[in-house]
Amino acid sequence: MNKKKVTFDDIAKYTNFSKTTISRYFNHPDSLTIKNQEIIAQALVDLNYQENKLAKVLANGKSEFIGIIIPNLFLHYYAEMLNQILKTYETFGYKFLVFVSTDNVETERKYIQELLAYKIEGMIILSHAIPSQELAASNIPIVTIEREDKYVNSVNTDNYMGAVQATSLLAKSNCDVLLHINSDVPKSTPSYGRISGFQEICREYHMEHELILQNLGNSYQETVDCMQETFNYIRNKYPGKNKGLFMANDTHANIMLNMIFRKYGMLPDEYHIVGFDDSPIAEEAIIPISTVGQQIDKIAFEAVSLLVEQMNERKKRRPKPQDGVIHKKITPILMRRETTK
Amino acid sequence: MNKKKVTFDDIAKYTNFSKTTISRYFNHPDSLTIKNQEIIAQALVDLNYQENKLAKVLANGKSEFIGIIIPNLFLHYYAEMLNQILKTYETFGYKFLVFVSTDNVETERKYIQELLAYKIEGMIILSHAIPSQELAASNIPIVTIEREDKYVNSVNTDNYMGAVQATSLLAKSNCDVLLHINSDVPKSTPSYGRISGFQEICREYHMEHELILQNLGNSYQETVDCMQETFNYIRNKYPGKNKGLFMANDTHANIMLNMIFRKYGMLPDEYHIVGFDDSPIAEEAIIPISTVGQQIDKIAFEAVSLLVEQMNERKKRRPKPQDGVIHKKITPILMRRETTK
Repeated sequence: MNKKKVTFDDIAKYTNFSKTTISRYFNHPDSLTIKNQEIIAQALVDLNYQENKLAKVLANGKSEFIGIIIPNLFLHYYAEMLNQILKTYETFGYKFLVFVSTDNVETERKYIQELLAYKIEGMIILSHAIPSQELAASNIPIVTIEREDKYVNSVNTDNYMGAVQATSLLAKSNCDVLLHINSDVPKSTPSYGRISGFQEICREYHMEHELILQNLGNSYQETVDCMQETFNYIRNKYPGKNKGLFMANDTHANIMLNMIFRKYGMLPDEYHIVGFDDSPIAEEAIIPISTVGQQIDKIAFEAVSLLVEQMNERKKRRPKPQDGVIHKKITPILMRRETTK
Repeated sequence: MNKKKVTFDDIAKYTNFSKTTISRYFNHPDSLTIKNQEIIAQALVDLNYQENKLAKVLANGKSEFIGIIIPNLFLHYYAEMLNQILKTYETFGYKFLVFVSTDNVETERKYIQELLAYKIEGMIILSHAIPSQELAASNIPIVTIEREDKYVNSVNTDNYMGAVQATSLLAKSNCDVLLHINSDVPKSTPSYGRISGFQEICREYHMEHELILQNLGNSYQETVDCMQETFNYIRNKYPGKNKGLFMANDTHANIMLNMIFRKYGMLPDEYHIVGFDDSPIAEEAIIPISTVGQQIDKIAFEAVSLLVEQMNERKKRRPKPQDGVIHKKITPILMRRETTK
């Protein structure tokens, strides 16, 4: 059974105010005294009034919607990022319309059209499919996280600083040779900083080092096979040397740790491992993995804050056009655990 | 710069149709010939017309929104479930407004009010805070997943069958004693089936068995401490016996496996472990863990399907009231890996 719809007329009769006063309550509540606001608010509860926000959006254009496109939720990094973004509802009151990317440009353009049709006020983009130049042309406030961001505002982990922290820790752990194992990251994506940071610190410390960049496969099993080859290569090339391994992420660090641990029944002193992300696997591994912890809560909060600033600017009578793009960097935190000395 | 807004007038002029025809195209497209529909559709592209779906919603009441309240995205199970729910957009076209629960009844009531204010057509609830009786009273189509569901429709894993599969596997692995380690799950939640299934199969096979139900802590470290005690207890109580451990989930199975593996440098023959969920940790563990795989994609799809059926019924001129509540069960799939023989 549907409840009978409560109208402005009903509220006016119940409170003895005019319909105009009720209407003012919804559109300009500050024009009423606090006492009258309270009387009407109580009446809404008594009458079980169901607000229709959509009608309000059409009237004032403020949907309070933010659209999100996220690559996938299989990786903990993205799931936790979405979690933290959604939590900002408590602070900013924005609601989130969420799409999961299929890595297909056409599909993602369709998602953006859908989002715009629902009058979203801004977008947070974590997927990689659409170049930032095209995103910027959509003429709506946008913040990206950890993807190519030349033409749009973004909030990213300071990947370079993370690599500096990880590499310095390994350099100070009596390592003879340092290795960074990663995929061949394009220079235009923020995570390239992990490669450049590693190289600079190795040169600064005059450490023997090697960059192992390769396609690490598209499934967990392919990555395992790749890491097995890499492990064999390292063992053969650097026998007896103290090896410091800076891995691209905690999943890779865990695979490498498992191989070494299964071979020796322990992690021998000649291996030191640092991961990246501080995802749950770093803590749940056979021994806890040292890692560069991304401050996901902070990144998410800064991304929404930056978006809210832009959205608020748009609502002004004379919005100031933004002067260039903003790229915020959040410093990661080194977590020393049992895979480094 | 804002693009100039394209009006019905502009479309009428461009196509040489009347404004009434353009309006009919948006509200009752079937009243036009296919050819005329195509002419107008092409004009919308040429003119770069931006549809306003909100206006349409107000006119016909169909927002195409589904609200979701999910407990958290830290656990892979929920993250992957949300992933699979969002993916049904490609099949059903519904958009998702997502809230993350704070486990607080008041907050969740506020979320539901927000969702209703945006004229959502239905809700999928995975959080536990609000009793199903109260949910049912909100007078909107609802489907719950893996939570107390007495008064609402639901789709759940067949937890009982999962326990039967896991326990049978252990019973056939030459175990002398079977143990199920879980928290003290209330009988009203679907996952209680894991306990009852374990008990029934043990009795059927006349196996020595023990149910270890306890508070497993609120953080990873607390769970680790709990499992350490449990491991000591089991070792002391059943020395030399072949022990089959049916764990409540893969996270717990991994903690137990790590303790045994670190103690012996391997998994001795006298330990057999089965987890539940088939979450990534089961595959990423020091040796791959046998587990009861939940078909998350299927659960998500069935949940949205069931909701869409109800939402469609509501749109009929004379909706049929539902005859009792529907509880769908999805059979899990046993994954035999290296922690069972």
